[in-house]
Amino acid sequence: MEQKKTSKRLRCIVKLGGAAITCKNKLETIDEENLKEVSSQIRQAFVPESTSANVIGMDWSKRSGQSEVPTFINDLCDQPVADSESFIVVHGAGSFGHFQASKSGVHKGGLSRPLVKAGFVATRISVTSLNLEIVRSLAREGIPSIGMSPFSCGWSTCQRNMTEADISMVIKAIDAGFIPVLHGDAVLDTLQECTILSGDMIIRHLAAELKPEFVVFLTDVLGVYDRPPVEPGAVLIREIAVREDGSWSVVKPKLEDTSKPVEFTVAAHDTTGGMVTKITEAAMIAKLGIDVYITKAGTDHSVKALSGFLKGGIPDDWLGTAIRYMS
Amino acid sequence: MEQKKTSKRLRCIVKLGGAAITCKNKLETIDEENLKEVSSQIRQAFVPESTSANVIGMDWSKRSGQSEVPTFINDLCDQPVADSESFIVVHGAGSFGHFQASKSGVHKGGLSRPLVKAGFVATRISVTSLNLEIVRSLAREGIPSIGMSPFSCGWSTCQRNMTEADISMVIKAIDAGFIPVLHGDAVLDTLQECTILSGDMIIRHLAAELKPEFVVFLTDVLGVYDRPPVEPGAVLIREIAVREDGSWSVVKPKLEDTSKPVEFTVAAHDTTGGMVTKITEAAMIAKLGIDVYITKAGTDHSVKALSGFLKGGIPDDWLGTAIRYMS
Repeated sequence: MEQKKTSKRLRCIVKLGGAAITCKNKLETIDEENLKEVSSQIRQAFVPESTSANVIGMDWSKRSGQSEVPTFINDLCDQPVADSESFIVVHGAGSFGHFQASKSGVHKGGLSRPLVKAGFVATRISVTSLNLEIVRSLAREGIPSIGMSPFSCGWSTCQRNMTEADISMVIKAIDAGFIPVLHGDAVLDTLQECTILSGDMIIRHLAAELKPEFVVFLTDVLGVYDRPPVEPGAVLIREIAVREDGSWSVVKPKLEDTSKPVEFTVAAHDTTGGMVTKITEAAMIAKLGIDVYITKAGTDHSVKALSGFLKGGIPDDWLGTAIRYMS
Repeated sequence: MEQKKTSKRLRCIVKLGGAAITCKNKLETIDEENLKEVSSQIRQAFVPESTSANVIGMDWSKRSGQSEVPTFINDLCDQPVADSESFIVVHGAGSFGHFQASKSGVHKGGLSRPLVKAGFVATRISVTSLNLEIVRSLAREGIPSIGMSPFSCGWSTCQRNMTEADISMVIKAIDAGFIPVLHGDAVLDTLQECTILSGDMIIRHLAAELKPEFVVFLTDVLGVYDRPPVEPGAVLIREIAVREDGSWSVVKPKLEDTSKPVEFTVAAHDTTGGMVTKITEAAMIAKLGIDVYITKAGTDHSVKALSGFLKGGIPDDWLGTAIRYMS
């Protein structure tokens, strides 16, 4: 009886990187301006007939500094609703959750320790606060967003690998016309009692099950570099080809020192930015024939990535990293 | 393979009535003082060895007006954790969600209407905001509370009756030592597309599946009256006996006019307070042999109800309504 696919094809999974929507060094602080811009770009990409003028705001809650509810609700009754394409948003934690999780070591497990148990609760409070604010921001743009916590969805891991992750509720939400908004979360683990399930692991699972047309990672830098982007001479990697066995190589630009394996060059970056992990995760998605675009949130490049425009080919003036399957 | 019961018996399900923890006539406003008192009483009842001095605070998030995180976290590592009894909290909406739901008619269904779809999203934003604040309040009292939204849990209805409500994740959370905090929610409905699933329906379902020792409803009045409590001469109904077929009658006090059926007297109240509905819901729980206590939040009477003290018998000085099975 279990339905395994959405009734219309999933257009996209969008990852909102924590660094793109929160202020990195300020505990639990949203980068309001970026989040608003990202939400607006997402609306333009997936609700093609919408304009900022005909948006049906779906966050009717009080906003801080305002005591009254919106007055536009009475005008809603007869307004036609712009059809949205199907997509899913998954976000990271940024300055939400990381402090609580790292302070308590939730990812290492051990719920019988008071610090871990308290940290598990504290982490979930922090990441669900962020989730609520992202859902509200998307809703204000007229996107029918629905927050769904992996923990509540019943997702769990075994030794930090996803085991139980029933996506039937995600599918039902999409088929009812909603946009699920998931997030990295503290979850139960059958072997070590608890751990952290990252947004990237969630995306890989959803991509494998639902086969979206493409996946977009929005971050705070233009894409993947051959070394930390703050270092002089760092080169943006524009295109990575993934082979059937999951191995990958840089196609563009031609790196000067070809004797030096790219994997090594990028690995040097891993200690600071986890870029090899990021590419490896992306390569696993690309291996399925799903294009992955990594680019900077709130730019012309993210507009192009979200619109699906890049499926036809990567123009020279697009700045970002495209990771694609090459047979 | 599905586990159907918690590994230790569930002590209690607590309903936090919306009216008890929010300010009724002020949109989306929590009654902070009441919520704090209720949270403290819940800690005292279910974490018997805890005192306000040895609480392990589990909300490490910034609070409005405070920019810093708590400093106590470093002291946590070696502190023994007081064992909590198993219980579940379910809360209503109060001044959260009701406005959004009633304005859009979510309970009547019809997601293709823009107003209903927007109202569905707006209702969930509002009720999940309240859920987060209740989870935080309980966590500050050292209760390892975990917010779980019925929608995300995959619960849905058919013509407003609960059909799919897999409680396996609720059981896993309890067995891992957490306290699930659920709430009335907007959910999908297989026949009318969407509706509102009330906190009371959730409690009835959980009680039937998990057979707690008792259920406590905390409200803003002392209990069920024979007419609206603001009317002169309103009498608090102290004890209701439920028979095997689910029918019920008032045992205490002996109402003066015995020729007048109590059902009718109470029904007169129904238009304003839904008291017959409330008693009928409670009677369905009591029929299973589970005592139900309805009383005012934040009083000595709620302390007694939460502690399980009333299971031995209802003392004369306890003010509230006890609904119990009489064979």
